[in-house]
Amino acid sequence: MGVKRSRLHACAIVGTTIQTHAAPMTQSIPPSGLQIRSLIKSTGELELRLVSIPTPTPGPNEVLVRVDAAPLNPSDLGLLFGAADMTAAVQVGTQDQPIISARVPEAAIKGMAGRFDQSMAVGNEGAGLVIGAGASDAAQALLGKVVAVLGGAMYSQFRCVPIEQCLPLPSGASAADGASSFVNPMTALAMIETMRAEGHTALVHTAAASNLGVMLNRICLKDQIPLVNIVRSPSQTEILRALGARYICDSSSPTFIQDLTQALSATGATLAFDAIGGGPLAGQILTGMEAVISAKSKEYSRYGSAVHKQVYIYGALGLGPVQIERNIGMTWGVGGWLVFPYLQKLDPAVMRRLKQRVADELRTTFESHYAGELSLAEALHLDTIAVYGKRSTGQKYLINPQKGEVDLA
Amino acid sequence: MGVKRSRLHACAIVGTTIQTHAAPMTQSIPPSGLQIRSLIKSTGELELRLVSIPTPTPGPNEVLVRVDAAPLNPSDLGLLFGAADMTAAVQVGTQDQPIISARVPEAAIKGMAGRFDQSMAVGNEGAGLVIGAGASDAAQALLGKVVAVLGGAMYSQFRCVPIEQCLPLPSGASAADGASSFVNPMTALAMIETMRAEGHTALVHTAAASNLGVMLNRICLKDQIPLVNIVRSPSQTEILRALGARYICDSSSPTFIQDLTQALSATGATLAFDAIGGGPLAGQILTGMEAVISAKSKEYSRYGSAVHKQVYIYGALGLGPVQIERNIGMTWGVGGWLVFPYLQKLDPAVMRRLKQRVADELRTTFESHYAGELSLAEALHLDTIAVYGKRSTGQKYLINPQKGEVDLA
Repeated sequence: MGVKRSRLHACAIVGTTIQTHAAPMTQSIPPSGLQIRSLIKSTGELELRLVSIPTPTPGPNEVLVRVDAAPLNPSDLGLLFGAADMTAAVQVGTQDQPIISARVPEAAIKGMAGRFDQSMAVGNEGAGLVIGAGASDAAQALLGKVVAVLGGAMYSQFRCVPIEQCLPLPSGASAADGASSFVNPMTALAMIETMRAEGHTALVHTAAASNLGVMLNRICLKDQIPLVNIVRSPSQTEILRALGARYICDSSSPTFIQDLTQALSATGATLAFDAIGGGPLAGQILTGMEAVISAKSKEYSRYGSAVHKQVYIYGALGLGPVQIERNIGMTWGVGGWLVFPYLQKLDPAVMRRLKQRVADELRTTFESHYAGELSLAEALHLDTIAVYGKRSTGQKYLINPQKGEVDLA
Repeated sequence: MGVKRSRLHACAIVGTTIQTHAAPMTQSIPPSGLQIRSLIKSTGELELRLVSIPTPTPGPNEVLVRVDAAPLNPSDLGLLFGAADMTAAVQVGTQDQPIISARVPEAAIKGMAGRFDQSMAVGNEGAGLVIGAGASDAAQALLGKVVAVLGGAMYSQFRCVPIEQCLPLPSGASAADGASSFVNPMTALAMIETMRAEGHTALVHTAAASNLGVMLNRICLKDQIPLVNIVRSPSQTEILRALGARYICDSSSPTFIQDLTQALSATGATLAFDAIGGGPLAGQILTGMEAVISAKSKEYSRYGSAVHKQVYIYGALGLGPVQIERNIGMTWGVGGWLVFPYLQKLDPAVMRRLKQRVADELRTTFESHYAGELSLAEALHLDTIAVYGKRSTGQKYLINPQKGEVDLA
């Protein structure tokens, strides 16, 4: 198995349109299918490869889904690559059965100990055609339907999942349309639910030009929720401006703190969701909130305002320490926030309402754009990893596990 | 009003015993009394002085208290001095009517804007004899009793307060015994209540050799709650060791992180109350908690453990930014914590139970030690400020507003 880096340029990702798949009924269920696996050995070596797994038989309340589209979300890349240094990765194996090998830097190996020597399937979400169903009426009712799935292991050709993890797509919607129905839409909606449940009336969002940020902006415009969008460049400002965002603060601007304070004053936001975490931003948001509240307050308290100010950190775009200055009074909180534990605790009726909204607004509010589509094997080619591994804003890719291998001749 | 610094050495604080006062019934109520006031002007000048205020008449559910003892807690000093630089303070006026003048450094003036030009009374808590009472039976029942009071403005000779703010002391207890019945005891008890309400079973406490820390240690020993005491020197370790503390970690020791991790593992603590705030300590506690939980966990999650880890910051011994490293997973929180808003939201039955416990254990669990006793005027002498202003652990002072002025001749 020689290293084959030079031959791979032919499959560089250039497409920006998504191949959509018709959803014909089929009775033939292949006995096995391919699946991407990620393994980190206790020596610190990462190995990515395709494995063939027997196609499972659905239990009474399960369905078998032919996965036609699954996005490469930042959260998936975290599991796929672990802490490995992908800039020094090498590719071995064949083009159709590639194997990627990379090393976890010494300092990060300890943090990976929990997953040592476990071959892990990857892919939080996706969508596809239901080609098999268990005996229950509810399962049978999904046969032949295109469903979005929050199932894990979605970088697979076939997945067997409980029906509760499925969201039937509206008529006419393709698997590609519905591939990102859960992680970003439900995160955005859960942020709104959190805001209401905790008594806030406006929001701050960082890394606001992301796929998620764009959805959140659409929801807030539609629901008339004041939203302060914090971005990190003038070009990201333009993305949000074009989408009608009202409050956009560019943290790379020399007037950022003033702009932020003005936006916080105009919106009254006391809750922020922060995708960055490391560095001073979470603290700057709290400082701005406290300054705005204090300026409007009549009564002095040396403990600062009695209004609770909260930043939830849900991502790790900044890996350094979170730094919180002590000019924010005593009524504040900063903490980690994860959408799935949040959703698990949610009232089932609320959960149904949120899922229904995603289905209803799949091609408006929750529309995703993809920079390209990859087969399972292509997702394990070094040159494609170099592109999608950058996690650039606006450069999200889809895996289509049914896509045939590229002819490199 | 000349500057009189040289004459003040005679009244340096040397006493370590507290003058206790008998509580004779008295019907004569003076028409006015002295009170300490703190004023910060918009120019940044701090002025401390005594004012004479008319003795108020109690409403139906109020009592008039002759204040005999009121502690100088760190939280009181924050209001008394604001952000002024007391090392450069000057004293004018007379010895009996001293005026202290100091300046707030330019950078800190903005943070004082909320209190500009307001003459503020100081002193969260204290104790004394009830010498007047409103018409209600409950108020009349307190006449002639020694009560602890959480009233604000306790650096006064006479205070009129609602009866709910009073705690009758057990028979034989002096005002000095009961002067610190609220801030530290209720903070320590509220920490335990918070621990139980939020589902934790053990605690971490920083600055653990403080008056508050000593009380918390006594409560935890008595109630069999595992407590990790974090101190900042070997001498503070000895204080707690002598009090029977089981887990003591000295942050100045080279083995601090290992000691802390071992103590967290032995206790299973997932909640910390931190008096320091600034610097890496809050993050180190969370890092240790997460390391302990991960080591005991069977299943890998790249979001870290699902166990919530919390640090509440209730003080500001460290004024720099709070620094939280990102090696703590996603299930954590850091936030400000204030005892009085917490108590205000508490079930009244729980509040009664806590107050009763303070009264019952006033001279055991909740015993306070004082380094000396000051008159109102002495509290505004530069050389006493130089001593009590240091806020050293184990160096708490009492004000006795009934104490006669020191003869400096």
